[in-house]
Amino acid sequence: MKKRLLKKRSKKVGLAPGTLIFVGRQKVDTASITVLDYDKKTFTETQPKTLDECLTYKKGKTTTWINVDGIHDSETIQAIGKAFGIHQLVLEDIMNTDQRPKIEEFNNYLFIILKMLYISEESQEFTLEQVSLILGDNYVISFQEKPEDTFGAVRERIRGASGRIRESSSDYLVNALIDAIVDNYFSVLERFGDKIEILEETLLKDPNEAAMKEIYHYKREMILIRKAIWPLREVISTLQKTGSFLVREETKIYLRDIHDHTVQIMDIIESFREILSSMMDIYLSTISNRMNAVMKILTIFAVIFIPLTFIVGVYGMNFENMPELKWAWGYPTVWGVMIVVTITMVGYFKRKNWL
Amino acid sequence: MKKRLLKKRSKKVGLAPGTLIFVGRQKVDTASITVLDYDKKTFTETQPKTLDECLTYKKGKTTTWINVDGIHDSETIQAIGKAFGIHQLVLEDIMNTDQRPKIEEFNNYLFIILKMLYISEESQEFTLEQVSLILGDNYVISFQEKPEDTFGAVRERIRGASGRIRESSSDYLVNALIDAIVDNYFSVLERFGDKIEILEETLLKDPNEAAMKEIYHYKREMILIRKAIWPLREVISTLQKTGSFLVREETKIYLRDIHDHTVQIMDIIESFREILSSMMDIYLSTISNRMNAVMKILTIFAVIFIPLTFIVGVYGMNFENMPELKWAWGYPTVWGVMIVVTITMVGYFKRKNWL
Amino acid sequence: MKKRLLKKRSKKVGLAPGTLIFVGRQKVDTASITVLDYDKKTFTETQPKTLDECLTYKKGKTTTWINVDGIHDSETIQAIGKAFGIHQLVLEDIMNTDQRPKIEEFNNYLFIILKMLYISEESQEFTLEQVSLILGDNYVISFQEKPEDTFGAVRERIRGASGRIRESSSDYLVNALIDAIVDNYFSVLERFGDKIEILEETLLKDPNEAAMKEIYHYKREMILIRKAIWPLREVISTLQKTGSFLVREETKIYLRDIHDHTVQIMDIIESFREILSSMMDIYLSTISNRMNAVMKILTIFAVIFIPLTFIVGVYGMNFENMPELKWAWGYPTVWGVMIVVTITMVGYFKRKNWL
Amino acid sequence: MKKRLLKKRSKKVGLAPGTLIFVGRQKVDTASITVLDYDKKTFTETQPKTLDECLTYKKGKTTTWINVDGIHDSETIQAIGKAFGIHQLVLEDIMNTDQRPKIEEFNNYLFIILKMLYISEESQEFTLEQVSLILGDNYVISFQEKPEDTFGAVRERIRGASGRIRESSSDYLVNALIDAIVDNYFSVLERFGDKIEILEETLLKDPNEAAMKEIYHYKREMILIRKAIWPLREVISTLQKTGSFLVREETKIYLRDIHDHTVQIMDIIESFREILSSMMDIYLSTISNRMNAVMKILTIFAVIFIPLTFIVGVYGMNFENMPELKWAWGYPTVWGVMIVVTITMVGYFKRKNWL
Amino acid sequence: MKKRLLKKRSKKVGLAPGTLIFVGRQKVDTASITVLDYDKKTFTETQPKTLDECLTYKKGKTTTWINVDGIHDSETIQAIGKAFGIHQLVLEDIMNTDQRPKIEEFNNYLFIILKMLYISEESQEFTLEQVSLILGDNYVISFQEKPEDTFGAVRERIRGASGRIRESSSDYLVNALIDAIVDNYFSVLERFGDKIEILEETLLKDPNEAAMKEIYHYKREMILIRKAIWPLREVISTLQKTGSFLVREETKIYLRDIHDHTVQIMDIIESFREILSSMMDIYLSTISNRMNAVMKILTIFAVIFIPLTFIVGVYGMNFENMPELKWAWGYPTVWGVMIVVTITMVGYFKRKNWL
Repeated sequence: MKKRLLKKRSKKVGLAPGTLIFVGRQKVDTASITVLDYDKKTFTETQPKTLDECLTYKKGKTTTWINVDGIHDSETIQAIGKAFGIHQLVLEDIMNTDQRPKIEEFNNYLFIILKMLYISEESQEFTLEQVSLILGDNYVISFQEKPEDTFGAVRERIRGASGRIRESSSDYLVNALIDAIVDNYFSVLERFGDKIEILEETLLKDPNEAAMKEIYHYKREMILIRKAIWPLREVISTLQKTGSFLVREETKIYLRDIHDHTVQIMDIIESFREILSSMMDIYLSTISNRMNAVMKILTIFAVIFIPLTFIVGVYGMNFENMPELKWAWGYPTVWGVMIVVTITMVGYFKRKNWL
Repeated sequence: MKKRLLKKRSKKVGLAPGTLIFVGRQKVDTASITVLDYDKKTFTETQPKTLDECLTYKKGKTTTWINVDGIHDSETIQAIGKAFGIHQLVLEDIMNTDQRPKIEEFNNYLFIILKMLYISEESQEFTLEQVSLILGDNYVISFQEKPEDTFGAVRERIRGASGRIRESSSDYLVNALIDAIVDNYFSVLERFGDKIEILEETLLKDPNEAAMKEIYHYKREMILIRKAIWPLREVISTLQKTGSFLVREETKIYLRDIHDHTVQIMDIIESFREILSSMMDIYLSTISNRMNAVMKILTIFAVIFIPLTFIVGVYGMNFENMPELKWAWGYPTVWGVMIVVTITMVGYFKRKNWL
Repeated sequence: MKKRLLKKRSKKVGLAPGTLIFVGRQKVDTASITVLDYDKKTFTETQPKTLDECLTYKKGKTTTWINVDGIHDSETIQAIGKAFGIHQLVLEDIMNTDQRPKIEEFNNYLFIILKMLYISEESQEFTLEQVSLILGDNYVISFQEKPEDTFGAVRERIRGASGRIRESSSDYLVNALIDAIVDNYFSVLERFGDKIEILEETLLKDPNEAAMKEIYHYKREMILIRKAIWPLREVISTLQKTGSFLVREETKIYLRDIHDHTVQIMDIIESFREILSSMMDIYLSTISNRMNAVMKILTIFAVIFIPLTFIVGVYGMNFENMPELKWAWGYPTVWGVMIVVTITMVGYFKRKNWL
Repeated sequence: MKKRLLKKRSKKVGLAPGTLIFVGRQKVDTASITVLDYDKKTFTETQPKTLDECLTYKKGKTTTWINVDGIHDSETIQAIGKAFGIHQLVLEDIMNTDQRPKIEEFNNYLFIILKMLYISEESQEFTLEQVSLILGDNYVISFQEKPEDTFGAVRERIRGASGRIRESSSDYLVNALIDAIVDNYFSVLERFGDKIEILEETLLKDPNEAAMKEIYHYKREMILIRKAIWPLREVISTLQKTGSFLVREETKIYLRDIHDHTVQIMDIIESFREILSSMMDIYLSTISNRMNAVMKILTIFAVIFIPLTFIVGVYGMNFENMPELKWAWGYPTVWGVMIVVTITMVGYFKRKNWL
Repeated sequence: MKKRLLKKRSKKVGLAPGTLIFVGRQKVDTASITVLDYDKKTFTETQPKTLDECLTYKKGKTTTWINVDGIHDSETIQAIGKAFGIHQLVLEDIMNTDQRPKIEEFNNYLFIILKMLYISEESQEFTLEQVSLILGDNYVISFQEKPEDTFGAVRERIRGASGRIRESSSDYLVNALIDAIVDNYFSVLERFGDKIEILEETLLKDPNEAAMKEIYHYKREMILIRKAIWPLREVISTLQKTGSFLVREETKIYLRDIHDHTVQIMDIIESFREILSSMMDIYLSTISNRMNAVMKILTIFAVIFIPLTFIVGVYGMNFENMPELKWAWGYPTVWGVMIVVTITMVGYFKRKNWL
């Protein structure tokens, strides 16, 4: 299935800002919520049926991570928004999966939109999924389009109390989630790089029209992926420089690390784009080369045989008065002439390095 | 009808700045004015015949939205300008439909020029229409070239008192109008995206000269649309950062949202441009590929038959002394030789992967 | 006459800075001076023979506009420079018509260099002419290469006391002169746009080598025009932000208007450049398409007739023992075979969509 | 062996930041450590087996340079990190050889990552190796992937007490190490330049498909090298402007020198890229030229002989009633006609400058 | 002789910064020194054999210009460096002719590196020569690779006491020297422009492979010249804004003039680059056009004669039973058919506008 260039958001035209309308393709049937609540010592993991269960965690001093899989249900989103005092425009953005990555600061929370990049198992296509994060004082809410295991490792680290994560507060959790997403870019781009290298091999050995279409396909993917990832750099940079009390100084050194990674990812994407462009050049010049080769073969055959055919044509004429025809050595002489002509021609092409 | 690259503004050459001359194509016969006057509780909608009717609203505390459809009539514009104390250069700009989007701050009003993008129903062409907005303390004046329903939804929201609009002041109305225009960009670009995807399909399956001309056509559209939309980002950004008392703090968060949208629109346009460029490459390489195929067919036929034709030519010669002609097995032998030659050639092309 | 890429300024090499040497092509025989002296109530227009006549106006409180047509005469320039206390480097720049647009601030005057763009009547070529302006407290001196009527409308406005011009001081006059030059760009670019559109039509209907040379010609023009106009934006911007007492606040709003125009002009030039580039692509792909068509015709004819010619060649052989030749139905059979071959081939090309 | 576009770092996905995992290709069996300890008067060089030996130098006032060859052993890295109080994220970066060049400031040390560029002796390929430097108050720790002699000259200067190096502190040592790396870029780029010039020669004399593939290969190398070196400029610039007490003022003038060199190196790489692009153009147009030449030869032969073959075909017909066949001068007349046709054709091609 | 892309500086690898090694091609046998010492009233010109002679001028209040031709002799450079207290890194840079233009400020002198561009008389190639300037309080030291007459005019002005130069101090002398170098760029670029225009003429009239190679050659030159001149703008700009006491305010207005010139030179180089790129396009499309023309000729001949040759082939067959052969009007009928076929074909090509 070909990815669409744009998601249909036209149904939003004419609505007041803040109206909750899902923009995107619905990927799960019902939204499900998972809550992890932890501090250094305690850890609880629940899958609450109702929202009220979530809210009990809000007041404690522990860090609460509420993960929502499935964002097409405006009622759930609206309820969460109301419970945590989130601005209506933020809720609108969460439900619109056609957003650029961005960060917005509010008085008591930060709102971050990111794009998750993964390779779908069935179609082997690259797919972008929108992730929204809300970082509050002692809670983090994450919204995904469907359950993905990108955050699985973070969950494991919390469960296993490995690393700093259980000892740190909500901003470190957000940092860990972003880190998981960005790390995932690397593994996807690695696979992309492998594909490009295979294509490169094909192209240098035996370029064909399928290869050209693949180059086009990858260039198009790169344009779309780049559009989705490019603003990420700014998001991380803003997060790193924010004056908000929500991001602690000791977390910022980890954000610097992520920032380095995003810069690196943009570098990789740019390199891929340039390499793909060069590959197109190679393809075009190979086609030209081949046409040259074809033309040479045609020309060699034509140039050698056309004069010979003319010569035999001459002695196929039916004039009564053609003295050569009666000569005893006429026929062998014609053969001699033809051999000389052929040798001359072959020599000519040899000198031109065509043979 | 092909769009002109530039509008004829040469009639303005030599005139003093501030002279009111309509630049553009007149789209309606007579200018019509609609006035919506509202606050939280009250709402009036009139279509005044004279300007004086409008002015009665100016002094009240309610918010007044005066919408002018048709801007070719310099007398009306001049009268409005005089009534609301608007600078002569602003009036000139309103009547000149060849303006870039821009914002200008004056002591007691802000002046904004925007481009509305829509698809004309008859010609299926993309058309740009200029919209000028004047934001005063308790009034908004909007000037359109012809009545369009882009603002219809805003009007409905006012009438229906839905959303925040009736509770907010004139700056929120301006925000709503800009939002309507920007939302409309998305729906137009969506249709553009659909067309590009159809063209892409054609191109990968069966590229032809019409497809190439379409690519060119879209590239040209993109150049012109981009020129018209590009400055919008700066306009919104200026509006967002303005120190003017006319734009309230609570409105700025909505402007931030619009700003995000404009950035996204520019991203989309850039992606489209890049994709169209890549499509041109595909087209060119497909043509080359085809030529290659044509040449191969010609070469295969020529290379196989030219030697054969030469051979039969040889035995068409009329020499009296050609011993082969008298051999009993001469004719079958020639056939044998010709079959060997053909098999050799076919084998050669097989080895070259041409067959 | 082809425009030169560069003007010969090599005669300046080795001279001390400030040496007055005319660089350019002399366009008038003798320099002529026109003086307009005016305030709200009075107006005088003279064409003084000597410079001393000019100087009488210098002391009055009226605004004086001294316009010099022809700048090749270093004595006149030097005399004016001395009379008005103008720096030697400024005088040098005035006489060197190969300058970039620029603005320089001095204690008691501003020096501005601009490029006038017009279409020469005889050759229909775009030509650039340098205009230097000196803005003093109550005087403006303008230097042109030859008398042009671009400033004619400004002169008329002064004579007719129309608009604000007679009520304003020297900075408004400079603003009016720059505005006249910039407005003129629009009308020249309009004509350029018309030419590009005609060329576009040609290109899409019947591209030929002349069209390609025209594209090249326009691209080259655009490169040179852009080089000449690009710095203008900065000039106007500097003028607008200057702290000099010479530019009054009420004039700056008019400069903002001109600044918008220069930005728009650069936009137009960039669009033209991009459109011309796309047109070149179209041209190249059309040539390829045509070659394809030519090759197809050749291939169709060759592929159909080459086997037929071979067949008739076979039965043109003179072997004594060729049984087919004696068959009663031999000749019709050969025709039958040939018709079958032809139908097969035509069918093949039909299936390939070549016919 | 083709270089991979990306190093496999996917094994890091899901791990907590700060986990030590080696990313890259292991180049030595066991890590080895060399310690140089010196001041103006004393000098010691040891190859300690255990880390504790290193630490004895840490407290003295002499400058200590600890060089670690081989970074795949996480235990060693961890031990060093602990001994010198280095942040866990820094250790992680040291072991991940897929880093961009960067600089990070900590309270009591600076951390610098650079790329060493060298030409491998066996494969003649350009290879990038990561070097990490830690600049402390009186020590420098350098980490290399394998022992290279790039730092050999610095070691020699320390041993021989030549230049300022023995009199200066640790920051000067870091400066010397960076200088050695940057100087090495020049020598590698020189060899690259030589190869490009040889390729250029080939291309202008006798372009072939191998040359095209070489151009592609070099363009690809340049893309990857540029990606690795580009951030270096910023690293040096940050180092030069740092307010850290670790970099003394008298060292900064040497850093300015290195900064100039990095700018120059980027200039060189850009020039190479542009030249390689132009070379591709040359290659493409040469192929086209050649095809033209091939086609001309074919056309000349075909156009001359096709009419002649037709003529002799005419008189090969077997009509009973062909009066020309019985004419005494028929045969010579046909020859005459054929000679006239040939001369006409040759003349035609001469006039077209094809012969 | 082809210019090398890079100068061999690899011999510097591994040396301590500040080591004096000549990098470049030695252009004179022995270095020679010329000293001009002047103030408003006095003037001395000497060619001292020993350095000590120079030093006598150092203490006076007059301005001293020491010009060194030939920079390969490290002893002389070292001696001058010691006498005038110049930093070791500066001396190193003076001897390394592969520097970018740059400016460095020291406490009591400024150090400037520039590139002189000239056309060598023998080879008509553009050559870059490095010039280093040291501006001290009352002295200027200039280092050239070999004696060139670019500074001749400045020398003449000092000798002849013409212009301001004798009345001004050392900074004005440096300004005059830079001005001489920059003015020289104009004259070299003028000659370049002439060559490009001649090439353009060739290209539009009769493009050939030599023209293509010339385009490539000029593009390459432009890349290298641009690399050498580009940083100049920054150098002049820094000089203009320096706070150093060495550059007096009254000199800065002259530097502004030079700054304008450098901007103009970069504009010219960019225009040349763009024009050369467009020329390459023209060349490529002309080749395609020509191939089209060649193919058309081939196709016309083939398509007309192939059917005719087939027809005459038919009646060259030797079937016993071919009734047409015995018809009295058989032969003329065949001619009739062939004439009809020919006319049809010619008509077809006429309709296609090929004839």
